[in-house]
Amino acid sequence: MEHEELEAADAVGSEEAEISNDKPEEVSLEEQLKEALNKSAELEAKLADAENRYIRLQADFDNSRRRARLDIEASEKYRAQKLISDLLPAIDNFERALQMETDSEQVKSVLQGMEMVYRSLLEALKNEGAEQIESVGKEFDPHIHQAVMQVEVEGFESNTVVEEFQKGYILKDRVIRPAMVKVNQ
Amino acid sequence: MEHEELEAADAVGSEEAEISNDKPEEVSLEEQLKEALNKSAELEAKLADAENRYIRLQADFDNSRRRARLDIEASEKYRAQKLISDLLPAIDNFERALQMETDSEQVKSVLQGMEMVYRSLLEALKNEGAEQIESVGKEFDPHIHQAVMQVEVEGFESNTVVEEFQKGYILKDRVIRPAMVKVNQ
Repeated sequence: MEHEELEAADAVGSEEAEISNDKPEEVSLEEQLKEALNKSAELEAKLADAENRYIRLQADFDNSRRRARLDIEASEKYRAQKLISDLLPAIDNFERALQMETDSEQVKSVLQGMEMVYRSLLEALKNEGAEQIESVGKEFDPHIHQAVMQVEVEGFESNTVVEEFQKGYILKDRVIRPAMVKVNQ
Repeated sequence: MEHEELEAADAVGSEEAEISNDKPEEVSLEEQLKEALNKSAELEAKLADAENRYIRLQADFDNSRRRARLDIEASEKYRAQKLISDLLPAIDNFERALQMETDSEQVKSVLQGMEMVYRSLLEALKNEGAEQIESVGKEFDPHIHQAVMQVEVEGFESNTVVEEFQKGYILKDRVIRPAMVKVNQ
């Protein structure tokens, strides 16, 4: 820009020199004016363009921040999903082990102690927003129940879960694993 | 630069004064030129300003994206920390229950089954990067061991952990809970 400035100064200088003749200075002035007006128009276009680019960048920036916030929220919300999924087989086995039938009072006592451990594991999952899906006696819901058997049993309403083969788990609003169930038709 | 602009405008002004007598239409042209040059200068300043603001915004944008990426990485790395902390009391109780001494073969068999469940829980934690801290026989390390007792025992080297009261856990490079230990002095 300094360079253009100098040109403008030169133009004024040469014009001064020319004034002495008849009227070439008017041409020169008009040309200068025309040039100056052209330059202004060009600068206005550039300025408008720069301002548009700024506005677009600002919009991109806002979008990017919004997306980053949503990403963080989603990744926070389901942060424990992988660990919970990895824990489920152990919890399934725990549950099965607790269902052991026995006449031994000693074994019953051990199982009672273990049942407390089991409940406190489920409590920790609950603190993170993960819970077991309710099944037996509930209306069959394909979002949370996976029907692996269909039966016709009297005394149960139609489309009702009558038995559960494997517990389902939900993390907040996301089904980690549907419950495997038997449904009455 | 504005300063040069003003000088250029002055030059035009003084010249204008000389011409003003017989040719008033030229004054008008010169005034227009002066105005046009002033406007150009003003637009150039605005354009430079707009370009600077764009560059600053771009730099802010880049920084913001970099920070967001680091935030996501950190929150991913330790995502399961809260759940793991919540699980530790249940795992402690599990461990204690398994250490039960018994003569009953039935109870021994139940405990063996439960030990497999316990190991698979630890395996799930390991998949997430969480592991038990090794203690007994290791050199005392205040970063991972919490000394709750100090003894003098022969046959152990000094500053060595001789007993562990409660397991410690580490998640990747972060200590979730130090091991509570007895140290030989």
